[in-house]
Amino acid sequence: MGKEIERKFLVKNDSWRGQVEGRRYRQGYLSTVKERTVRIRTAGDKGFITVKGITVGASRSEYEYEIPLTDANEMLDRLCERPLIEKTRYRIPQGNVAWEIDEFEGDNRGLITAEVELKDEHQSVAFPSWLGQEVTGDPRYFNANLVAKPYSTW
Amino acid sequence: MGKEIERKFLVKNDSWRGQVEGRRYRQGYLSTVKERTVRIRTAGDKGFITVKGITVGASRSEYEYEIPLTDANEMLDRLCERPLIEKTRYRIPQGNVAWEIDEFEGDNRGLITAEVELKDEHQSVAFPSWLGQEVTGDPRYFNANLVAKPYSTW
Repeated sequence: MGKEIERKFLVKNDSWRGQVEGRRYRQGYLSTVKERTVRIRTAGDKGFITVKGITVGASRSEYEYEIPLTDANEMLDRLCERPLIEKTRYRIPQGNVAWEIDEFEGDNRGLITAEVELKDEHQSVAFPSWLGQEVTGDPRYFNANLVAKPYSTW
Repeated sequence: MGKEIERKFLVKNDSWRGQVEGRRYRQGYLSTVKERTVRIRTAGDKGFITVKGITVGASRSEYEYEIPLTDANEMLDRLCERPLIEKTRYRIPQGNVAWEIDEFEGDNRGLITAEVELKDEHQSVAFPSWLGQEVTGDPRYFNANLVAKPYSTW
Protein backbone atom coordinates (compact mmCIF):
# COMPACT_ATOMS: atom_id res chain seq x y z
CA MET A 1 0.00 0.00 0.00
CA GLY A 2 1.02 3.57 -0.35
CA LYS A 3 -0.42 7.02 -0.34
CA GLU A 4 0.82 9.04 -3.29
CA ILE A 5 0.98 12.80 -2.63
CA GLU A 6 1.85 14.69 -5.76
CA ARG A 7 1.63 18.20 -7.16
CA LYS A 8 1.53 18.62 -10.92
CA PHE A 9 2.40 21.70 -12.99
CA LEU A 10 2.78 22.76 -16.57
CA VAL A 11 6.25 23.67 -17.85
CA LYS A 12 6.60 27.19 -19.25
CA ASN A 13 10.01 27.14 -20.95
CA ASP A 14 12.87 24.90 -22.04
CA SER A 15 15.47 25.91 -19.44
CA TRP A 16 15.20 22.45 -17.79
CA ARG A 17 16.52 20.72 -20.90
CA GLY A 18 20.00 19.24 -21.20
CA GLN A 19 20.49 18.53 -17.48
CA VAL A 20 19.60 14.81 -17.44
CA GLU A 21 18.90 11.98 -19.84
CA GLY A 22 15.32 10.94 -20.33
CA ARG A 23 13.82 7.47 -20.01
CA ARG A 24 11.13 6.21 -22.37
CA TYR A 25 7.79 5.28 -20.84
CA ARG A 26 5.04 3.38 -22.58
CA GLN A 27 1.82 2.90 -20.69
CA GLY A 28 -1.74 1.80 -21.16
CA TYR A 29 -4.82 1.25 -19.05
CA LEU A 30 -6.85 -1.84 -18.18
CA SER A 31 -9.26 0.43 -16.29
CA THR A 32 -9.64 4.19 -16.59
CA VAL A 33 -12.52 4.34 -14.08
CA LYS A 34 -11.31 6.99 -11.65
CA GLU A 35 -12.19 5.01 -8.51
CA ARG A 36 -9.90 2.17 -9.65
CA THR A 37 -7.46 2.84 -12.47
CA VAL A 38 -5.17 -0.02 -13.50
CA ARG A 39 -2.07 0.89 -15.48
CA ILE A 40 0.49 -1.23 -17.30
CA ARG A 41 3.80 0.57 -17.81
CA THR A 42 7.20 -0.11 -19.25
CA ALA A 43 9.97 2.20 -18.03
CA GLY A 44 13.23 1.47 -19.84
CA ASP A 45 13.62 -2.33 -19.45
CA LYS A 46 11.25 -2.77 -16.51
CA GLY A 47 7.53 -3.57 -16.43
CA PHE A 48 4.95 -2.58 -13.81
CA ILE A 49 1.28 -3.01 -12.97
CA THR A 50 -0.16 -0.17 -10.87
CA VAL A 51 -3.55 0.25 -9.21
CA LYS A 52 -4.68 3.71 -8.08
CA GLY A 53 -7.74 4.76 -6.14
CA ILE A 54 -9.64 8.02 -6.31
CA THR A 55 -7.80 11.31 -5.71
CA VAL A 56 -8.71 13.11 -2.48
CA GLY A 57 -6.98 16.51 -2.40
CA ALA A 58 -3.45 15.71 -3.62
CA SER A 59 -3.51 12.17 -2.11
CA ARG A 60 -4.23 8.95 -3.87
CA SER A 61 -3.82 5.33 -2.75
CA GLU A 62 -1.40 3.47 -5.00
CA TYR A 63 -0.25 -0.13 -5.30
CA GLU A 64 2.59 -0.88 -7.71
CA TYR A 65 4.20 -4.22 -8.56
CA GLU A 66 7.06 -5.02 -10.90
CA ILE A 67 6.15 -7.63 -13.52
CA PRO A 68 8.09 -9.28 -16.36
CA LEU A 69 8.80 -6.87 -19.23
CA THR A 70 7.45 -9.38 -21.77
CA ASP A 71 4.12 -9.60 -19.88
CA ALA A 72 3.88 -5.80 -19.76
CA ASN A 73 4.56 -5.48 -23.49
CA GLU A 74 2.02 -8.21 -24.34
CA MET A 75 -0.67 -6.53 -22.25
CA LEU A 76 0.16 -3.13 -23.79
CA ASP A 77 0.02 -4.57 -27.31
CA ARG A 78 -3.06 -6.78 -26.90
CA LEU A 79 -5.23 -5.81 -23.92
CA CYS A 80 -4.93 -2.14 -22.95
CA GLU A 81 -7.29 0.61 -24.09
CA ARG A 82 -6.24 2.66 -27.13
CA PRO A 83 -4.33 4.87 -27.65
CA LEU A 84 -1.33 4.06 -25.46
CA ILE A 85 0.45 6.89 -23.68
CA GLU A 86 4.06 7.37 -24.82
CA LYS A 87 6.32 9.87 -23.16
CA THR A 88 9.90 10.54 -22.10
CA ARG A 89 10.48 11.20 -18.40
CA TYR A 90 13.31 13.42 -17.15
CA ARG A 91 14.08 13.25 -13.43
CA ILE A 92 15.65 16.44 -12.08
CA PRO A 93 16.82 16.36 -8.42
CA GLN A 94 16.38 19.58 -6.43
CA GLY A 95 17.25 19.66 -2.74
CA ASN A 96 15.38 16.79 -1.05
CA VAL A 97 12.79 16.37 -3.81
CA ALA A 98 12.97 15.40 -7.48
CA TRP A 99 10.95 16.88 -10.34
CA GLU A 100 9.66 14.44 -12.92
CA ILE A 101 9.13 16.12 -16.26
CA ASP A 102 6.99 14.18 -18.75
CA GLU A 103 7.23 15.11 -22.42
CA PHE A 104 4.34 13.42 -24.22
CA GLU A 105 4.29 12.02 -27.75
CA GLY A 106 1.68 10.82 -30.21
CA ASP A 107 -1.82 12.25 -29.67
CA ASN A 108 -0.53 14.12 -26.60
CA ARG A 109 2.46 15.74 -28.31
CA GLY A 110 2.95 19.31 -27.10
CA LEU A 111 2.02 18.54 -23.52
CA ILE A 112 4.84 18.77 -20.97
CA THR A 113 4.09 18.35 -17.25
CA ALA A 114 6.24 18.41 -14.12
CA GLU A 115 5.37 16.46 -10.97
CA VAL A 116 6.86 16.42 -7.52
CA GLU A 117 6.11 13.78 -4.88
CA LEU A 118 5.76 15.09 -1.32
CA LYS A 119 5.81 13.55 2.15
CA ASP A 120 2.61 15.35 3.10
CA GLU A 121 0.21 17.76 1.46
CA HIS A 122 1.68 20.80 3.21
CA GLN A 123 5.41 20.23 2.56
CA SER A 124 6.89 23.40 1.04
CA VAL A 125 8.99 23.14 -2.10
CA ALA A 126 11.06 25.68 -4.06
CA PHE A 127 9.68 26.33 -7.54
CA PRO A 128 12.20 26.16 -10.38
CA SER A 129 12.22 28.97 -12.98
CA TRP A 130 10.74 26.77 -15.71
CA LEU A 131 7.68 25.84 -13.63
CA GLY A 132 4.33 27.02 -14.98
CA GLN A 133 0.72 26.88 -13.82
CA GLU A 134 -0.28 24.30 -11.20
CA VAL A 135 -2.74 21.68 -12.50
CA THR A 136 -2.88 19.34 -9.46
CA GLY A 137 -6.32 17.77 -9.32
CA ASP A 138 -7.33 18.87 -12.84
CA PRO A 139 -8.67 15.60 -14.24
CA ARG A 140 -7.80 16.51 -17.84
CA TYR A 141 -4.14 15.98 -16.99
CA PHE A 142 -4.57 12.55 -15.39
CA ASN A 143 -2.70 10.19 -17.69
CA ALA A 144 -5.73 7.86 -17.63
CA ASN A 145 -7.82 10.69 -19.13
CA LEU A 146 -5.21 11.49 -21.79
CA VAL A 147 -6.21 8.17 -23.39
CA ALA A 148 -9.86 9.05 -24.13
CA LYS A 149 -9.23 12.80 -24.51
CA PRO A 150 -5.67 13.38 -25.72
CA TYR A 151 -4.14 16.87 -25.52
CA SER A 152 -4.41 17.32 -29.31
CA THR A 153 -8.24 17.26 -29.02
CA TRP A 154 -8.55 19.99 -26.34
CA MET B 1 1.94 -14.74 -19.98
CA GLY B 2 -0.27 -17.75 -20.14
CA LYS B 3 -3.16 -19.19 -22.05
CA GLU B 4 -5.84 -20.51 -19.77
CA ILE B 5 -7.88 -23.36 -21.26
CA GLU B 6 -10.76 -24.32 -19.02
CA ARG B 7 -14.04 -26.15 -19.19
CA LYS B 8 -16.73 -25.27 -16.68
CA PHE B 9 -19.72 -27.32 -15.55
CA LEU B 10 -22.53 -27.25 -13.06
CA VAL B 11 -22.53 -29.79 -10.23
CA LYS B 12 -25.60 -32.01 -10.05
CA ASN B 13 -25.27 -33.75 -6.68
CA ASP B 14 -23.29 -33.79 -3.42
CA SER B 15 -21.27 -36.98 -3.97
CA TRP B 16 -18.05 -34.92 -4.31
CA ARG B 17 -18.32 -33.69 -0.72
CA GLY B 18 -16.12 -34.91 2.12
CA GLN B 19 -13.10 -35.84 -0.06
CA VAL B 20 -10.96 -32.73 0.47
CA GLU B 21 -10.87 -29.62 2.62
CA GLY B 22 -11.94 -26.38 1.03
CA ARG B 23 -10.03 -23.12 0.89
CA ARG B 24 -11.77 -19.76 1.29
CA TYR B 25 -11.53 -17.35 -1.64
CA ARG B 26 -12.48 -13.70 -1.53
CA GLN B 27 -12.27 -11.80 -4.77
CA GLY B 28 -13.27 -8.54 -6.35
CA TYR B 29 -12.82 -6.73 -9.63
CA LEU B 30 -11.04 -3.53 -10.61
CA SER B 31 -12.35 -4.03 -14.15
CA THR B 32 -15.19 -6.27 -15.30
CA VAL B 33 -14.87 -5.19 -18.95
CA LYS B 34 -14.62 -8.54 -20.74
CA GLU B 35 -11.69 -7.52 -22.96
CA ARG B 36 -9.58 -6.78 -19.86
CA THR B 37 -10.82 -8.01 -16.50
CA VAL B 38 -8.63 -7.29 -13.48
CA ARG B 39 -9.24 -9.38 -10.38
CA ILE B 40 -7.93 -9.11 -6.82
CA ARG B 41 -8.11 -12.39 -4.91
CA THR B 42 -7.19 -13.76 -1.55
CA ALA B 43 -6.85 -17.54 -1.37
CA GLY B 44 -6.18 -18.67 2.19
CA ASP B 45 -3.26 -16.44 3.28
CA LYS B 46 -2.08 -15.45 -0.19
CA GLY B 47 -3.00 -12.45 -2.35
CA PHE B 48 -3.05 -12.18 -6.13
CA ILE B 49 -3.73 -9.69 -8.92
CA THR B 50 -4.87 -11.30 -12.17
CA VAL B 51 -5.47 -9.83 -15.62
CA LYS B 52 -7.53 -11.77 -18.16
CA GLY B 53 -8.25 -11.03 -21.79
CA ILE B 54 -11.29 -11.94 -23.84
CA THR B 55 -12.37 -15.58 -24.09
CA VAL B 56 -11.91 -17.20 -27.52
CA GLY B 57 -13.42 -20.71 -27.48
CA ALA B 58 -12.23 -22.14 -24.16
CA SER B 59 -8.95 -20.13 -24.24
CA ARG B 60 -8.18 -16.90 -22.46
CA SER B 61 -4.91 -15.05 -21.95
CA GLU B 62 -4.11 -14.70 -18.26
CA TYR B 63 -1.43 -12.92 -16.25
CA GLU B 64 -1.31 -13.59 -12.52
CA TYR B 65 1.04 -12.12 -9.89
CA GLU B 66 1.26 -12.80 -6.18
CA ILE B 67 0.99 -9.62 -4.10
CA PRO B 68 1.10 -8.94 -0.34
CA LEU B 69 -2.04 -10.20 1.45
CA THR B 70 -2.50 -6.81 3.18
CA ASP B 71 -2.52 -5.01 -0.20
CA ALA B 72 -5.06 -7.49 -1.56
CA ASN B 73 -7.34 -7.04 1.45
CA GLU B 74 -7.09 -3.23 1.29
CA MET B 75 -7.97 -3.22 -2.42
CA LEU B 76 -10.87 -5.64 -1.79
CA ASP B 77 -12.17 -3.51 1.08
CA ARG B 78 -11.69 -0.07 -0.50
CA LEU B 79 -11.34 -0.19 -4.29
CA CYS B 80 -13.06 -3.18 -5.88
CA GLU B 81 -16.56 -3.16 -7.37
CA ARG B 82 -19.39 -4.34 -5.14
CA PRO B 83 -20.44 -6.98 -4.22
CA LEU B 84 -17.31 -9.08 -3.66
CA ILE B 85 -17.36 -12.73 -4.67
CA GLU B 86 -16.93 -15.11 -1.75
CA LYS B 87 -16.63 -18.82 -2.24
CA THR B 88 -14.97 -21.97 -0.99
CA ARG B 89 -12.87 -23.92 -3.47
CA TYR B 90 -12.42 -27.69 -3.26
CA ARG B 91 -9.66 -29.18 -5.41
CA ILE B 92 -10.29 -32.81 -6.35
CA PRO B 93 -7.48 -34.61 -8.24
CA GLN B 94 -8.56 -37.11 -10.89
CA GLY B 95 -5.91 -38.84 -13.02
CA ASN B 96 -3.72 -36.15 -14.57
CA VAL B 97 -6.21 -33.32 -14.07
CA ALA B 98 -7.81 -31.68 -11.03
CA TRP B 99 -11.39 -30.50 -10.67
CA GLU B 100 -11.91 -27.21 -8.90
CA ILE B 101 -15.35 -27.02 -7.32
CA ASP B 102 -16.47 -23.53 -6.28
CA GLU B 103 -19.31 -23.24 -3.78
CA PHE B 104 -20.46 -19.62 -3.79
CA GLU B 105 -21.78 -17.57 -0.88
CA GLY B 106 -23.57 -14.27 -0.37
CA ASP B 107 -25.59 -13.10 -3.37
CA ASN B 108 -24.39 -16.15 -5.34
CA ARG B 109 -25.34 -18.74 -2.72
CA GLY B 110 -26.77 -21.85 -4.33
CA LEU B 111 -24.37 -21.78 -7.27
CA ILE B 112 -21.78 -24.58 -7.40
CA THR B 113 -19.49 -24.90 -10.42
CA ALA B 114 -16.69 -27.30 -11.36
CA GLU B 115 -13.78 -26.32 -13.59
CA VAL B 116 -10.98 -28.30 -15.13
CA GLU B 117 -7.87 -26.80 -16.72
CA LEU B 118 -6.67 -28.51 -19.90
CA LYS B 119 -3.46 -28.54 -21.90
CA ASP B 120 -5.35 -27.91 -25.12
CA GLU B 121 -8.96 -27.48 -26.14
CA HIS B 122 -9.30 -31.06 -27.40
CA GLN B 123 -7.81 -32.95 -24.43
CA SER B 124 -10.26 -35.65 -23.34
CA VAL B 125 -11.20 -35.94 -19.69
CA ALA B 126 -13.29 -38.48 -17.73
CA PHE B 127 -16.46 -36.96 -16.30
CA PRO B 128 -17.10 -37.67 -12.61
CA SER B 129 -20.59 -38.83 -11.56
CA TRP B 130 -21.45 -35.52 -9.86
CA LEU B 131 -20.75 -33.48 -13.02
CA GLY B 132 -23.75 -31.65 -14.49
CA GLN B 133 -24.39 -29.50 -17.56
CA GLU B 134 -21.42 -27.86 -19.29
CA VAL B 135 -21.49 -24.05 -19.13
CA THR B 136 -18.08 -23.25 -20.70
CA GLY B 137 -18.35 -19.93 -22.49
CA ASP B 138 -21.70 -18.96 -20.93
CA PRO B 139 -20.93 -15.42 -19.78
CA ARG B 140 -23.44 -15.53 -16.90
CA TYR B 141 -21.08 -17.88 -15.08
CA PHE B 142 -17.96 -15.72 -15.48
CA ASN B 143 -17.08 -14.66 -11.95
CA ALA B 144 -16.72 -11.06 -13.19
CA ASN B 145 -20.39 -11.17 -14.28
CA LEU B 146 -21.54 -12.66 -10.97
CA VAL B 147 -20.74 -9.24 -9.45
CA ALA B 148 -23.26 -7.19 -11.47
CA LYS B 149 -25.74 -10.07 -11.91
CA PRO B 150 -25.44 -12.47 -8.99
CA TYR B 151 -27.01 -15.94 -9.19
CA SER B 152 -29.79 -14.93 -6.78
CA THR B 153 -31.13 -12.43 -9.37
CA TRP B 154 -31.40 -14.90 -12.29
